[in-house]
Amino acid sequence: MPCAVDGEGEREIVGVATLEEAGPGEVSFLANAKYEKALQTTGAGAVIVSREQEIPSGMTVLRTADPYAAFTMIMVHVHGFRRHPEVGIDERAVIDRGAVIGEGASIQHGVTIRPGVRMGRGVVVYAGCYIAEDCRLGDDCVLYPNVVLYDGTILGDRVTIHAGSVIGEDGLGYAKVEGKWRKIPQIGIVEIGDDAEIGANCSIDRATLGRTVIGPGTKFSNLIAIGHGTKIGEDCMFVAQVGVAGSVTVGRHVTMAGKVGVAGHLTIGDNAQLAAMTGVMRDVPADTRVAGQPAIPFKAALRSFSLVERLPEIHKQIKRLESQVAALKKALEERE
Amino acid sequence: MPCAVDGEGEREIVGVATLEEAGPGEVSFLANAKYEKALQTTGAGAVIVSREQEIPSGMTVLRTADPYAAFTMIMVHVHGFRRHPEVGIDERAVIDRGAVIGEGASIQHGVTIRPGVRMGRGVVVYAGCYIAEDCRLGDDCVLYPNVVLYDGTILGDRVTIHAGSVIGEDGLGYAKVEGKWRKIPQIGIVEIGDDAEIGANCSIDRATLGRTVIGPGTKFSNLIAIGHGTKIGEDCMFVAQVGVAGSVTVGRHVTMAGKVGVAGHLTIGDNAQLAAMTGVMRDVPADTRVAGQPAIPFKAALRSFSLVERLPEIHKQIKRLESQVAALKKALEERE
Amino acid sequence: MPCAVDGEGEREIVGVATLEEAGPGEVSFLANAKYEKALQTTGAGAVIVSREQEIPSGMTVLRTADPYAAFTMIMVHVHGFRRHPEVGIDERAVIDRGAVIGEGASIQHGVTIRPGVRMGRGVVVYAGCYIAEDCRLGDDCVLYPNVVLYDGTILGDRVTIHAGSVIGEDGLGYAKVEGKWRKIPQIGIVEIGDDAEIGANCSIDRATLGRTVIGPGTKFSNLIAIGHGTKIGEDCMFVAQVGVAGSVTVGRHVTMAGKVGVAGHLTIGDNAQLAAMTGVMRDVPADTRVAGQPAIPFKAALRSFSLVERLPEIHKQIKRLESQVAALKKALEERE
Repeated sequence: MPCAVDGEGEREIVGVATLEEAGPGEVSFLANAKYEKALQTTGAGAVIVSREQEIPSGMTVLRTADPYAAFTMIMVHVHGFRRHPEVGIDERAVIDRGAVIGEGASIQHGVTIRPGVRMGRGVVVYAGCYIAEDCRLGDDCVLYPNVVLYDGTILGDRVTIHAGSVIGEDGLGYAKVEGKWRKIPQIGIVEIGDDAEIGANCSIDRATLGRTVIGPGTKFSNLIAIGHGTKIGEDCMFVAQVGVAGSVTVGRHVTMAGKVGVAGHLTIGDNAQLAAMTGVMRDVPADTRVAGQPAIPFKAALRSFSLVERLPEIHKQIKRLESQVAALKKALEERE
Repeated sequence: MPCAVDGEGEREIVGVATLEEAGPGEVSFLANAKYEKALQTTGAGAVIVSREQEIPSGMTVLRTADPYAAFTMIMVHVHGFRRHPEVGIDERAVIDRGAVIGEGASIQHGVTIRPGVRMGRGVVVYAGCYIAEDCRLGDDCVLYPNVVLYDGTILGDRVTIHAGSVIGEDGLGYAKVEGKWRKIPQIGIVEIGDDAEIGANCSIDRATLGRTVIGPGTKFSNLIAIGHGTKIGEDCMFVAQVGVAGSVTVGRHVTMAGKVGVAGHLTIGDNAQLAAMTGVMRDVPADTRVAGQPAIPFKAALRSFSLVERLPEIHKQIKRLESQVAALKKALEERE
Repeated sequence: MPCAVDGEGEREIVGVATLEEAGPGEVSFLANAKYEKALQTTGAGAVIVSREQEIPSGMTVLRTADPYAAFTMIMVHVHGFRRHPEVGIDERAVIDRGAVIGEGASIQHGVTIRPGVRMGRGVVVYAGCYIAEDCRLGDDCVLYPNVVLYDGTILGDRVTIHAGSVIGEDGLGYAKVEGKWRKIPQIGIVEIGDDAEIGANCSIDRATLGRTVIGPGTKFSNLIAIGHGTKIGEDCMFVAQVGVAGSVTVGRHVTMAGKVGVAGHLTIGDNAQLAAMTGVMRDVPADTRVAGQPAIPFKAALRSFSLVERLPEIHKQIKRLESQVAALKKALEERE
């Protein structure tokens, strides 16, 4: 990524910090105009800014087209990612003899690995995880503590699942027979694609039949619920507490902000953007942005939101009109 | 359930699959009109359909009044339910000497069972579960990995709790004393009735005093929160991310769709149906269907939703009326 | 707290119970007018009521200005708080040699304590907890089963975390580079202040840089999600399923009712009260009460809610006006 330095290009940088907290040995960044004022007071040794950003005189900056992406690369370069404990295969893990574990794995104490499991190279499994029968994990997966994979779950390569998430539990599959809920065996599975990352305390239902799918490169925050048989495309981003019901088809590059809810059996097109708390009751076409409960196009939703706020005033307008019309009518009648 | 075969009644069926994925040895089903088109292209050996369903010529179908219930029975017959690992009582479980465990139990390594616990026959407890002091479990309960039962929790027979759920934690019980939150001891318990099934990563608060109750046959999806002292009736169905505050009384056969929220101290009548994302602020009478935030009768909510969408247009109507009325008034005045 | 007895002051009380369930040896309380009727039928030996409360004749009551606070104190006095298992340091816990654990700790089997961890006196850690590298816990903290603290988490004194909660997982920090989400190392931490209590199955993201902060005395219910870098003040109260996005600043004594959502980078002032299911898209000033999606002042929201319900009727009013205006216009024109 091309980057131009304004100021002292020789400064040594040993860390990255927020504008508020950075000192002279640290680089910071400005990617959200909301924090522009902090440029005036920051102690940062250097700041990554956009090409057009006005800066206080004397400040050393790195100018680039995408400050957030540049900041990301510097973070990776300077700090790198979390190093996982290298414990080999702890003898206090409870691993079935028939399970296949690739080279370089790190399996902590207290982990359960059941018959028929096959795992690639370099997999990291923290304490308290449970990997049920016939799961298949690709290379370099990371399961943080207390993750549970129900039987038959398939993870691609480099899948990361944060602590406490549950993958492949039975979905809400019951038929009502004589007033009682009769359970339907849930014989499908969950498949999560390469490079997906799932947050903490999520739950992804196995399919009743076939597969629930989370596409490659898709990123989930925490406390997200995905219903049985739902298929989510590549490179989506779901914020915390999103809930998608069963049998939904979600395209690629879809963004769902916090607490979005999607009803069952719908289709959400590629690149759709669902604002926070949106409640989706109908299909959402590709390349659209929606908001509201039920969801409507984003701009229309903003107009409706502001008119809902103004309803008391609108209601007064109507009452005023009614009395004016009544007065006119009376005036006209009197003139008969 | 009576069932009539149209076509080849001798076909051998070895599995069940979706219309999309079924092959000649598999039976599929059509219960949602939305998937009718898939009948044209399915490779299924047979399809369960309603009595009236039109079908492509030559297709073998089983006709029945309730295809979904018939599908359920075939699933149970052909595939059965998950078989749990039969490990007996693993010596690496940490079980208090005074705990009573019925015959045929399967208790995995790493499980904690504290003093005073009493469990019926055939109970299955997966790794990482914690069963605190004085819990009582009926026969044939299943606790998936990492379930936590706080002290005193009571489970009936055949209760299933999915991975990561927490039952009986302290509710949000504090009194404000001089600006600080003073904790109230939560000395009540949670009681879950026979045949209830609780999804993954749920949380059900113990009562402050007395009991929080989940009725027999009630089914929960995932990430559901139930407040202290709430009492839920029999055979209810709660979808993912439902939240019910404390001291609520919920009747029998109540359906709460995804993300429904119910405020404290309310009563929800038998057979009530709460649409997804409904926010309940007042009692809901029996046999009614509600939607919206705050909840109103379902049909009224649909009308209001569609009018909210049309608010910009309605607002224009009002402005037009205002200028028309002004013009009329002026015309009338000019004629004085 | 001053308290006056009406009736028999010598009664012996051995427990506390609800009005419905209390017997002659138990004290109950009336703090919510909704339950006033139960005074007529309660079998309680005594009831705590407000100074003005009318009571059935012959009932023994304790009159006080704040019955709920008085009830709290009696609960503490009569029942006390949960006693945790005193197991010392179980040899089946997996504790790094370099970790420092204060006197009087109770660490159950299966717990993981990684290098660099420092814990104060009297800390209780239930089975299945994972305390990652370099965490610091003050005195008398309690971690219920299966709590996970990611590396570097700081807890003050007397912090309680209920079962299944995850503190310090990576937030949703990615930059989009050529259509793919590139992960940003999350090098910040989470800090939780003295006397905070966190419910079950919550998730609190570590900061990207710097700290995510939960202030002293703040109380969380269950299934709450807090985004990276958010700072929450002292003595707040958050009800179940609240979600606060990243980089939010929340003041002191803030109440968020169930399912409230707050968008990123906002400021919520001291003493603000957010009604259940509020969706906050703009800053909320101190000492205000808001509701609605998006949030507006509480009273205005109530008016708007009731007008949304009446939209069908309002729409009819407008149509009637339109035909009246058209009729008037015609009448006027005919008279030209």
